[in-house]
Amino acid sequence: MRRNIVLTIQYEGTRFDGWQKQGNTQNTIQGKLEAVLSKLTDESVELHASGRTDAGVHAFAQIANFHTDCNLSCDEIMRYVNQFLPKDCALIAAREAEPRFHSRLSAKRKRYRYTIHTSEIPDVFSRRFAWELGAKLDVSAMKTAAKSLIGRHDFKCFCDNKHMKKSTVRELYEINIVSTSQGISIDFLGNGFLYHMVRLIAGTLVSVGEGELTADELSKILESGERSGKVRLAPACGLCLMEVFYD
Amino acid sequence: MRRNIVLTIQYEGTRFDGWQKQGNTQNTIQGKLEAVLSKLTDESVELHASGRTDAGVHAFAQIANFHTDCNLSCDEIMRYVNQFLPKDCALIAAREAEPRFHSRLSAKRKRYRYTIHTSEIPDVFSRRFAWELGAKLDVSAMKTAAKSLIGRHDFKCFCDNKHMKKSTVRELYEINIVSTSQGISIDFLGNGFLYHMVRLIAGTLVSVGEGELTADELSKILESGERSGKVRLAPACGLCLMEVFYD
Repeated sequence: MRRNIVLTIQYEGTRFDGWQKQGNTQNTIQGKLEAVLSKLTDESVELHASGRTDAGVHAFAQIANFHTDCNLSCDEIMRYVNQFLPKDCALIAAREAEPRFHSRLSAKRKRYRYTIHTSEIPDVFSRRFAWELGAKLDVSAMKTAAKSLIGRHDFKCFCDNKHMKKSTVRELYEINIVSTSQGISIDFLGNGFLYHMVRLIAGTLVSVGEGELTADELSKILESGERSGKVRLAPACGLCLMEVFYD
Repeated sequence: MRRNIVLTIQYEGTRFDGWQKQGNTQNTIQGKLEAVLSKLTDESVELHASGRTDAGVHAFAQIANFHTDCNLSCDEIMRYVNQFLPKDCALIAAREAEPRFHSRLSAKRKRYRYTIHTSEIPDVFSRRFAWELGAKLDVSAMKTAAKSLIGRHDFKCFCDNKHMKKSTVRELYEINIVSTSQGISIDFLGNGFLYHMVRLIAGTLVSVGEGELTADELSKILESGERSGKVRLAPACGLCLMEVFYD
């Protein structure tokens, strides 16, 4: 039986073309990691992540697993891989799992954080990890509007995959809007997320915070099931995959 | 009487060749700022900073002033300058001072922070702002050793300017070593700092933390007044100018 190794991966997405390996583009996190792991194990390693992240999106703790016949310890794998990865990507944990564990299929919940700077004064040190809006938001209106999104809904209006054939029904357990020294952060806890879903909800909530959209209108957009012009995509740099939950 | 404008400047030093403008090198913080300010005021602006910072060193709040005949408000100056500065440098405050104020000559105290990651696990998000040592340190030995440096001393052994003609006597009020989630930070509060002084003290304190040097030996180095081979230069990326104090 081949071993099943589960990696916890941290990356700053700024410089990458997203998680997923693509035809010619080699500058993906999956591509970089598979290259280093394949060299280490002398096998053709294929990584299965909990989900893709878009170009520019960060991960505090992405999860990905691979099968291997190598007999290196998890510590040895971590040390070797970190030595050969670029500085904006690192393994922060490695463990062995039962053979049937699959990073995406076994995932129960995920938490994403969207960070927004509302201060007019730039923050040089955290600018790579936030949407620099530079304008005040009505946080209380955003909190009210967010309530209508909690629960099990068809989130088709917040999905940018027009050819999505599978169900667009997802369950959102929490949307937690917190004030920070520079602005706000919005945490999303759900059982799964559609393509661009967090960024589309975050962007549209910002429209509510700016007074461009009411909580009622947001609720109607959700019911309509249509990606209307009022749905707004927040930039990738503010988004971070924080945690993936398993049983 | 020309106006005297005092700027508070934040920068990530990674990409810059330090604060001070140099012959051919245009990639300095002073150079960038003076170019933008000169264009704005249609004058040849000369900035006086509280002190230079080396290539790669960061500033949470550097202070610099300039004299001008322009009648723009401080808010207008901030907005314009931030629009034209690169993203790793920003004005976070601007105010008008009395004519005799000089950022360097009027400064009473300065606080620097040196950050060290001791965890073996890399931190992708804060790596630009820390010395990634990746090894445990004996913090209690470092704290004991630091005590001998507090007070008014000739810090010649911690100065990398061999042709320093002025006094190398400085007063250190505090060396505050604090444990963080990733390692430690060392805050230095003093009335002034010599060339490389904070990095040389930080590096040598790390040698103490690694058991390579005793507190006694450190104390003797200070007394000897000589930059011996035991004095170690910590990398620039871990250093940040935190605050400059005036009356």
